[in-house]
Amino acid sequence: MLKLYTGRGTIGLACEIVLEEAGADYEVIRLDFAQEEQRKADYLAVNPKSRVPALATDRGVITEAPAIVGYVAEVFPQAGLAPLHDPFAMAQVQAFNTYLCSWVHPAAAHRHRGYRWADDPEAIKDMRRKAPEVFAEAMRLIEDELFKGPWVMGEAYSTCDAYLYVVTSWLPRDGIDMARFPKLSEHFARVGARPAVSKVLAQVAA
Amino acid sequence: MLKLYTGRGTIGLACEIVLEEAGADYEVIRLDFAQEEQRKADYLAVNPKSRVPALATDRGVITEAPAIVGYVAEVFPQAGLAPLHDPFAMAQVQAFNTYLCSWVHPAAAHRHRGYRWADDPEAIKDMRRKAPEVFAEAMRLIEDELFKGPWVMGEAYSTCDAYLYVVTSWLPRDGIDMARFPKLSEHFARVGARPAVSKVLAQVAA
Repeated sequence: MLKLYTGRGTIGLACEIVLEEAGADYEVIRLDFAQEEQRKADYLAVNPKSRVPALATDRGVITEAPAIVGYVAEVFPQAGLAPLHDPFAMAQVQAFNTYLCSWVHPAAAHRHRGYRWADDPEAIKDMRRKAPEVFAEAMRLIEDELFKGPWVMGEAYSTCDAYLYVVTSWLPRDGIDMARFPKLSEHFARVGARPAVSKVLAQVAA
Repeated sequence: MLKLYTGRGTIGLACEIVLEEAGADYEVIRLDFAQEEQRKADYLAVNPKSRVPALATDRGVITEAPAIVGYVAEVFPQAGLAPLHDPFAMAQVQAFNTYLCSWVHPAAAHRHRGYRWADDPEAIKDMRRKAPEVFAEAMRLIEDELFKGPWVMGEAYSTCDAYLYVVTSWLPRDGIDMARFPKLSEHFARVGARPAVSKVLAQVAA
Protein backbone atom coordinates (compact mmCIF):
# COMPACT_ATOMS: atom_id res chain seq x y z
CA MET A 1 0.00 0.00 0.00
CA LEU A 2 1.16 3.55 -0.74
CA LYS A 3 1.94 5.64 2.33
CA LEU A 4 1.87 9.44 2.10
CA TYR A 5 3.80 11.47 4.65
CA THR A 6 2.37 14.95 4.82
CA GLY A 7 1.59 17.82 7.21
CA ARG A 8 -1.43 20.12 7.58
CA GLY A 9 -1.18 23.35 5.58
CA THR A 10 1.46 21.97 3.20
CA ILE A 11 1.53 21.11 -0.49
CA GLY A 12 1.20 17.47 0.61
CA LEU A 13 -2.54 18.15 0.34
CA ALA A 14 -2.22 18.20 -3.47
CA CYS A 15 -0.70 14.70 -3.36
CA GLU A 16 -3.44 13.45 -1.06
CA ILE A 17 -6.10 14.77 -3.47
CA VAL A 18 -4.37 13.15 -6.45
CA LEU A 19 -4.15 9.79 -4.62
CA GLU A 20 -7.87 10.01 -3.88
CA GLU A 21 -8.71 11.02 -7.47
CA ALA A 22 -6.68 8.04 -8.68
CA GLY A 23 -8.69 5.60 -6.55
CA ALA A 24 -5.42 4.47 -4.95
CA ASP A 25 -5.23 2.37 -1.82
CA TYR A 26 -3.21 4.68 0.44
CA GLU A 27 -2.52 5.54 4.04
CA VAL A 28 -1.77 9.07 5.27
CA ILE A 29 0.73 9.86 8.00
CA ARG A 30 0.35 13.43 9.21
CA LEU A 31 3.53 14.74 10.79
CA ASP A 32 3.09 17.10 13.70
CA PHE A 33 5.14 20.16 12.71
CA ALA A 34 4.60 21.77 16.15
CA GLN A 35 6.55 18.80 17.57
CA GLU A 36 9.07 19.10 14.68
CA GLU A 37 8.41 15.47 13.75
CA GLN A 38 9.80 16.23 10.29
CA ARG A 39 13.26 16.68 11.86
CA LYS A 40 13.31 13.47 13.90
CA ALA A 41 15.42 10.44 13.06
CA ASP A 42 12.39 8.28 12.18
CA TYR A 43 11.37 10.69 9.47
CA LEU A 44 14.89 11.50 8.28
CA ALA A 45 15.16 7.80 7.42
CA VAL A 46 12.17 8.31 5.10
CA ASN A 47 13.21 11.70 3.69
CA PRO A 48 16.62 13.14 4.59
CA LYS A 49 15.44 16.55 3.34
CA SER A 50 13.14 16.69 6.43
CA ARG A 51 10.37 18.05 4.27
CA VAL A 52 6.96 16.79 3.25
CA PRO A 53 5.46 15.31 1.18
CA ALA A 54 7.06 11.89 0.71
CA LEU A 55 5.38 8.82 -0.76
CA ALA A 56 6.55 5.38 0.37
CA THR A 57 6.03 2.74 -2.32
CA ASP A 58 7.00 -0.94 -2.38
CA ARG A 59 10.16 0.07 -4.29
CA GLY A 60 11.21 2.99 -2.12
CA VAL A 61 10.36 6.57 -1.29
CA ILE A 62 9.47 9.31 -3.77
CA THR A 63 9.88 12.93 -2.65
CA GLU A 64 8.84 16.28 -4.18
CA ALA A 65 5.20 17.02 -4.95
CA PRO A 66 5.54 17.20 -8.78
CA ALA A 67 7.28 13.81 -8.83
CA ILE A 68 4.69 12.24 -6.52
CA VAL A 69 1.67 13.47 -8.49
CA GLY A 70 3.41 12.48 -11.74
CA TYR A 71 4.01 8.98 -10.41
CA VAL A 72 0.42 8.53 -9.25
CA ALA A 73 -0.87 9.69 -12.65
CA GLU A 74 1.45 7.18 -14.32
CA VAL A 75 0.61 4.10 -12.21
CA PHE A 76 -3.16 4.74 -12.22
CA PRO A 77 -3.62 5.49 -15.93
CA GLN A 78 -7.35 4.70 -15.83
CA ALA A 79 -7.86 7.80 -13.64
CA GLY A 80 -6.83 10.03 -16.57
CA LEU A 81 -4.85 12.48 -14.41
CA ALA A 82 -2.30 13.34 -17.10
CA PRO A 83 -2.01 13.11 -20.93
CA LEU A 84 0.33 10.11 -20.59
CA HIS A 85 0.71 9.34 -24.29
CA ASP A 86 1.43 12.85 -25.51
CA PRO A 87 4.98 14.05 -24.67
CA PHE A 88 4.23 17.69 -25.57
CA ALA A 89 1.09 17.80 -23.41
CA MET A 90 2.97 15.99 -20.60
CA ALA A 91 5.68 18.64 -20.81
CA GLN A 92 3.01 21.33 -20.40
CA VAL A 93 1.72 19.57 -17.27
CA GLN A 94 5.22 19.28 -15.91
CA ALA A 95 6.04 22.91 -16.74
CA PHE A 96 2.95 24.10 -14.90
CA ASN A 97 3.67 22.06 -11.77
CA THR A 98 7.31 23.14 -11.96
CA TYR A 99 6.30 26.80 -12.06
CA LEU A 100 4.23 26.23 -8.91
CA CYS A 101 7.00 24.38 -7.06
CA SER A 102 10.02 26.40 -8.14
CA TRP A 103 8.64 29.93 -8.25
CA VAL A 104 5.14 30.36 -6.75
CA HIS A 105 5.59 28.15 -3.68
CA PRO A 106 9.00 29.63 -2.67
CA ALA A 107 7.60 33.16 -3.32
CA ALA A 108 4.79 32.48 -0.84
CA ALA A 109 7.19 30.77 1.59
CA HIS A 110 9.11 34.02 2.05
CA ARG A 111 6.17 35.19 4.17
CA HIS A 112 6.38 32.43 6.78
CA ARG A 113 9.82 30.92 6.33
CA GLY A 114 12.13 33.83 5.55
CA TYR A 115 14.67 32.38 8.04
CA ARG A 116 15.59 29.88 5.33
CA TRP A 117 17.28 32.63 3.31
CA ALA A 118 18.35 35.31 5.83
CA ASP A 119 19.30 35.62 9.50
CA ASP A 120 18.78 39.33 10.21
CA PRO A 121 15.29 39.79 11.75
CA GLU A 122 14.84 43.01 9.74
CA ALA A 123 15.59 41.14 6.51
CA ILE A 124 13.08 38.46 7.44
CA LYS A 125 10.52 41.19 8.16
CA ASP A 126 11.13 42.81 4.76
CA MET A 127 10.66 39.46 2.97
CA ARG A 128 7.47 38.91 4.95
CA ARG A 129 6.15 42.27 3.80
CA LYS A 130 7.05 41.73 0.13
CA ALA A 131 6.04 38.05 -0.18
CA PRO A 132 2.32 38.62 -0.85
CA GLU A 133 3.22 41.03 -3.70
CA VAL A 134 5.46 38.44 -5.36
CA PHE A 135 2.95 35.64 -4.76
CA ALA A 136 0.09 37.74 -6.21
CA GLU A 137 2.18 38.67 -9.25
CA ALA A 138 2.81 34.97 -9.98
CA MET A 139 -0.89 34.16 -9.60
CA ARG A 140 -1.65 37.05 -11.99
CA LEU A 141 0.57 35.40 -14.61
CA ILE A 142 -1.31 32.13 -14.12
CA GLU A 143 -4.69 33.91 -14.37
CA ASP A 144 -3.74 35.91 -17.48
CA GLU A 145 -1.37 33.63 -19.37
CA LEU A 146 -1.10 30.02 -18.25
CA PHE A 147 -4.62 28.99 -17.22
CA LYS A 148 -6.65 27.57 -20.12
CA GLY A 149 -10.01 26.78 -18.48
CA PRO A 150 -12.22 25.23 -17.38
CA TRP A 151 -9.29 23.20 -16.03
CA VAL A 152 -5.68 24.34 -15.97
CA MET A 153 -4.82 22.41 -19.14
CA GLY A 154 -8.16 23.00 -20.86
CA GLU A 155 -10.85 20.35 -21.21
CA ALA A 156 -9.20 17.65 -19.09
CA TYR A 157 -8.70 17.63 -15.34
CA SER A 158 -5.09 16.84 -14.43
CA THR A 159 -2.63 16.85 -11.53
CA CYS A 160 -2.16 20.59 -12.22
CA ASP A 161 -5.68 21.26 -10.93
CA ALA A 162 -5.11 19.67 -7.53
CA TYR A 163 -1.77 21.44 -7.26
CA LEU A 164 -3.17 24.86 -8.23
CA TYR A 165 -6.17 24.38 -5.92
CA VAL A 166 -3.88 24.05 -2.89
CA VAL A 167 -1.70 27.02 -3.87
CA THR A 168 -4.82 29.17 -4.50
CA SER A 169 -6.08 28.25 -1.01
CA TRP A 170 -3.04 30.08 0.42
CA LEU A 171 -4.10 33.45 -1.04
CA PRO A 172 -6.52 34.48 1.77
CA ARG A 173 -4.10 33.17 4.41
CA ASP A 174 -1.54 35.63 3.03
CA GLY A 175 -4.00 38.52 2.95
CA ILE A 176 -4.58 38.42 -0.82
CA ASP A 177 -8.16 38.79 -2.02
CA MET A 178 -8.94 35.79 -4.22
CA ALA A 179 -11.55 37.88 -6.06
CA ARG A 180 -8.70 39.70 -7.83
CA PHE A 181 -8.34 36.48 -9.86
CA PRO A 182 -11.78 35.62 -11.29
CA LYS A 183 -10.64 32.56 -13.28
CA LEU A 184 -8.67 31.17 -10.35
CA SER A 185 -11.58 31.81 -7.96
CA GLU A 186 -13.96 29.92 -10.23
CA HIS A 187 -11.37 27.15 -10.62
CA PHE A 188 -10.94 26.94 -6.86
CA ALA A 189 -14.71 26.41 -6.43
CA ARG A 190 -14.78 23.90 -9.31
CA VAL A 191 -11.99 21.76 -7.84
CA GLY A 192 -13.46 22.12 -4.34
CA ALA A 193 -16.76 20.66 -5.58
CA ARG A 194 -15.14 17.37 -6.65
CA PRO A 195 -16.07 14.43 -4.41
CA ALA A 196 -12.40 13.42 -4.00
CA VAL A 197 -11.58 16.86 -2.65
CA SER A 198 -14.48 16.89 -0.15
CA LYS A 199 -13.41 13.46 1.05
CA VAL A 200 -9.78 14.54 1.50
CA LEU A 201 -10.73 17.77 3.31
CA ALA A 202 -12.84 15.70 5.73
CA GLN A 203 -9.86 13.34 6.28
CA VAL A 204 -7.60 16.31 7.03
CA ALA A 205 -10.12 17.84 9.47
CA ALA A 206 -10.76 14.53 11.28
CA MET B 1 13.51 22.24 -35.72
CA LEU B 2 13.69 22.76 -31.96
CA LYS B 3 14.72 26.25 -30.90
CA LEU B 4 16.19 26.79 -27.43
CA TYR B 5 16.03 30.25 -25.89
CA THR B 6 18.69 30.56 -23.23
CA GLY B 7 21.18 32.96 -21.67
CA ARG B 8 24.82 32.63 -20.63
CA GLY B 9 25.29 31.58 -16.99
CA THR B 10 21.75 30.20 -16.68
CA ILE B 11 20.28 26.74 -16.20
CA GLY B 12 19.47 26.83 -19.91
CA LEU B 13 22.91 25.27 -20.31
CA ALA B 14 21.54 21.99 -18.92
CA CYS B 15 18.89 21.97 -21.63
CA GLU B 16 21.48 22.71 -24.33
CA ILE B 17 23.60 19.78 -23.12
CA VAL B 18 20.59 17.45 -23.07
CA LEU B 19 19.62 18.49 -26.64
CA GLU B 20 23.17 17.75 -27.75
CA GLU B 21 23.27 14.40 -25.91
CA ALA B 22 19.96 13.51 -27.58
CA GLY B 23 21.39 14.11 -31.04
CA ALA B 24 18.57 16.58 -31.66
CA ASP B 25 18.51 19.02 -34.54
CA TYR B 26 18.30 22.32 -32.63
CA GLU B 27 19.07 26.00 -32.85
CA VAL B 28 20.15 28.13 -29.88
CA ILE B 29 19.05 31.71 -29.34
CA ARG B 30 21.13 33.38 -26.65
CA LEU B 31 19.32 36.32 -25.09
CA ASP B 32 21.46 39.24 -24.05
CA PHE B 33 20.59 39.79 -20.39
CA ALA B 34 22.70 42.98 -20.27
CA GLN B 35 20.24 44.40 -22.83
CA GLU B 36 17.31 42.87 -20.86
CA GLU B 37 16.19 41.03 -23.99
CA GLN B 38 14.26 38.63 -21.78
CA ARG B 39 11.87 41.49 -20.88
CA LYS B 40 11.20 42.67 -24.43
CA ALA B 41 7.92 42.11 -26.25
CA ASP B 42 9.46 39.69 -28.78
CA TYR B 43 10.52 37.36 -26.01
CA LEU B 44 7.41 37.85 -23.86
CA ALA B 45 5.47 36.42 -26.80
CA VAL B 46 7.62 33.27 -26.44
CA ASN B 47 7.63 33.11 -22.64
CA PRO B 48 5.46 35.55 -20.67
CA LYS B 49 7.46 34.67 -17.53
CA SER B 50 10.43 36.57 -19.09
CA ARG B 51 12.75 33.82 -17.97
CA VAL B 52 14.94 31.31 -19.74
CA PRO B 53 15.07 28.57 -20.82
CA ALA B 54 12.21 28.07 -23.25
CA LEU B 55 12.04 25.47 -26.02
CA ALA B 56 10.01 26.25 -29.13
CA THR B 57 8.67 23.08 -30.77
CA ASP B 58 6.38 22.63 -33.76
CA ARG B 59 3.45 22.35 -31.31
CA GLY B 60 4.29 25.31 -29.11
CA VAL B 61 6.67 26.49 -26.42
CA ILE B 62 7.80 24.48 -23.39
CA THR B 63 9.17 26.38 -20.40
CA GLU B 64 10.93 25.28 -17.19
CA ALA B 65 14.17 23.31 -17.34
CA PRO B 66 12.85 20.04 -15.79
CA ALA B 67 9.98 19.99 -18.31
CA ILE B 68 12.31 20.74 -21.24
CA VAL B 69 14.85 18.03 -20.36
CA GLY B 70 12.00 15.59 -19.66
CA TYR B 71 10.49 16.32 -23.06
CA VAL B 72 13.79 15.86 -24.90
CA ALA B 73 14.38 12.53 -23.11
CA GLU B 74 10.89 11.43 -24.13
CA VAL B 75 11.05 12.38 -27.83
CA PHE B 76 14.59 11.02 -28.36
CA PRO B 77 14.19 7.66 -26.59
CA GLN B 78 17.17 6.12 -28.39
CA ALA B 79 19.46 8.52 -26.50
CA GLY B 80 18.58 6.76 -23.23
CA LEU B 81 18.44 9.98 -21.19
CA ALA B 82 15.76 8.74 -18.78
CA PRO B 83 14.31 5.37 -17.63
CA LEU B 84 11.20 5.96 -19.76
CA HIS B 85 9.49 2.64 -19.10
CA ASP B 86 9.88 2.54 -15.33
CA PRO B 87 7.50 4.92 -13.51
CA PHE B 88 9.31 4.58 -10.16
CA ALA B 89 12.72 5.32 -11.69
CA MET B 90 11.20 8.18 -13.70
CA ALA B 91 9.79 9.61 -10.46
CA GLN B 92 13.30 9.50 -8.96
CA VAL B 93 14.65 11.43 -11.96
CA GLN B 94 11.86 13.95 -11.66
CA ALA B 95 12.32 14.27 -7.88
CA PHE B 96 16.03 14.98 -8.33
CA ASN B 97 15.49 17.63 -10.99
CA THR B 98 12.68 19.11 -8.89
CA TYR B 99 14.98 19.37 -5.87
CA LEU B 100 17.46 21.28 -8.03
CA CYS B 101 14.87 23.64 -9.50
CA SER B 102 12.70 24.27 -6.44
CA TRP B 103 15.26 24.35 -3.64
CA VAL B 104 18.91 24.42 -4.76
CA HIS B 105 18.56 26.89 -7.64
CA PRO B 106 16.45 29.44 -5.65
CA ALA B 107 18.86 29.05 -2.69
CA ALA B 108 21.78 30.02 -4.95
CA ALA B 109 19.71 32.77 -6.60
CA HIS B 110 19.45 34.63 -3.28
CA ARG B 111 23.09 35.61 -3.80
CA HIS B 112 22.58 37.47 -7.06
CA ARG B 113 18.85 38.11 -7.29
CA GLY B 114 17.74 38.92 -3.74
CA TYR B 115 15.69 41.83 -5.13
CA ARG B 116 13.14 39.27 -6.21
CA TRP B 117 12.13 38.68 -2.57
CA ALA B 118 12.99 41.90 -0.70
CA ASP B 119 13.33 45.65 -1.37
CA ASP B 120 15.44 46.83 1.57
CA PRO B 121 19.11 46.95 0.45
CA GLU B 122 20.17 45.63 3.88
CA ALA B 123 17.85 42.64 3.51
CA ILE B 124 19.28 41.93 0.05
CA LYS B 125 22.77 42.14 1.53
CA ASP B 126 21.89 39.67 4.28
CA MET B 127 20.50 37.18 1.74
CA ARG B 128 23.62 37.62 -0.35
CA ARG B 129 25.75 36.75 2.68
CA LYS B 130 23.71 33.70 3.68
CA ALA B 131 23.05 32.27 0.19
CA PRO B 132 26.32 30.32 -0.15
CA GLU B 133 25.65 28.59 3.21
CA VAL B 134 22.20 27.46 2.11
CA PHE B 135 23.47 26.45 -1.34
CA ALA B 136 26.37 24.46 0.19
CA GLU B 137 24.02 22.73 2.64
CA ALA B 138 21.83 21.58 -0.24
CA MET B 139 24.85 20.30 -2.17
CA ARG B 140 25.93 18.46 1.01
CA LEU B 141 22.60 16.64 1.03
CA ILE B 142 23.10 15.66 -2.61
CA GLU B 143 26.68 14.49 -1.91
CA ASP B 144 25.72 12.47 1.18
CA GLU B 145 22.21 11.24 0.45
CA LEU B 146 20.89 11.61 -3.08
CA PHE B 147 23.87 10.95 -5.37
CA LYS B 148 24.25 7.25 -6.26
CA GLY B 149 27.35 7.24 -8.48
CA PRO B 150 28.99 7.03 -10.87
CA TRP B 151 26.03 8.99 -12.31
CA VAL B 152 23.34 10.69 -10.26
CA MET B 153 20.92 7.80 -10.69
CA GLY B 154 23.57 5.06 -10.54
CA GLU B 155 24.76 3.14 -13.59
CA ALA B 156 22.89 5.13 -16.23
CA TYR B 157 23.56 8.70 -17.37
CA SER B 158 20.34 10.75 -17.32
CA THR B 159 19.04 14.31 -17.57
CA CYS B 160 19.90 14.66 -13.84
CA ASP B 161 23.61 14.57 -14.70
CA ALA B 162 23.48 17.52 -17.07
CA TYR B 163 21.31 19.43 -14.60
CA LEU B 164 23.60 18.72 -11.63
CA TYR B 165 26.70 19.53 -13.70
CA VAL B 166 25.47 23.06 -14.34
CA VAL B 167 24.44 23.65 -10.72
CA THR B 168 27.80 22.32 -9.48
CA SER B 169 29.56 24.75 -11.83
CA TRP B 170 28.04 27.60 -9.79
CA LEU B 171 29.87 26.57 -6.58
CA PRO B 172 33.19 28.36 -7.29
CA ARG B 173 31.33 31.40 -8.66
CA ASP B 174 29.66 31.67 -5.24
CA GLY B 175 32.91 31.22 -3.34
CA ILE B 176 32.29 27.61 -2.34
CA ASP B 177 35.21 25.21 -2.64
CA MET B 178 34.08 22.31 -4.84
CA ALA B 179 36.64 20.05 -3.10
CA ARG B 180 34.33 19.97 -0.05
CA PHE B 181 32.19 17.63 -2.16
CA PRO B 182 34.42 14.82 -3.46
CA LYS B 183 31.66 12.86 -5.21
CA LEU B 184 30.25 15.97 -6.85
CA SER B 185 33.73 17.10 -7.92
CA GLU B 186 34.41 13.74 -9.55
CA HIS B 187 30.96 13.82 -11.16
CA PHE B 188 31.60 17.33 -12.48
CA ALA B 189 34.79 16.13 -14.18
CA ARG B 190 33.05 13.01 -15.51
CA VAL B 191 30.21 14.97 -17.10
CA GLY B 192 32.65 17.61 -18.36
CA ALA B 193 34.58 14.90 -20.22
CA ARG B 194 31.59 13.91 -22.35
CA PRO B 195 31.89 14.95 -26.00
CA ALA B 196 28.42 16.53 -25.97
CA VAL B 197 29.44 18.79 -23.10
CA SER B 198 32.70 19.91 -24.74
CA LYS B 199 30.79 20.68 -27.89
CA VAL B 200 28.19 22.75 -26.05
CA LEU B 201 30.79 24.65 -24.02
CA ALA B 202 32.51 25.57 -27.27
CA GLN B 203 29.17 26.75 -28.72
CA VAL B 204 28.58 28.93 -25.65
CA ALA B 205 32.08 30.43 -25.82
CA ALA B 206 31.83 31.10 -29.56
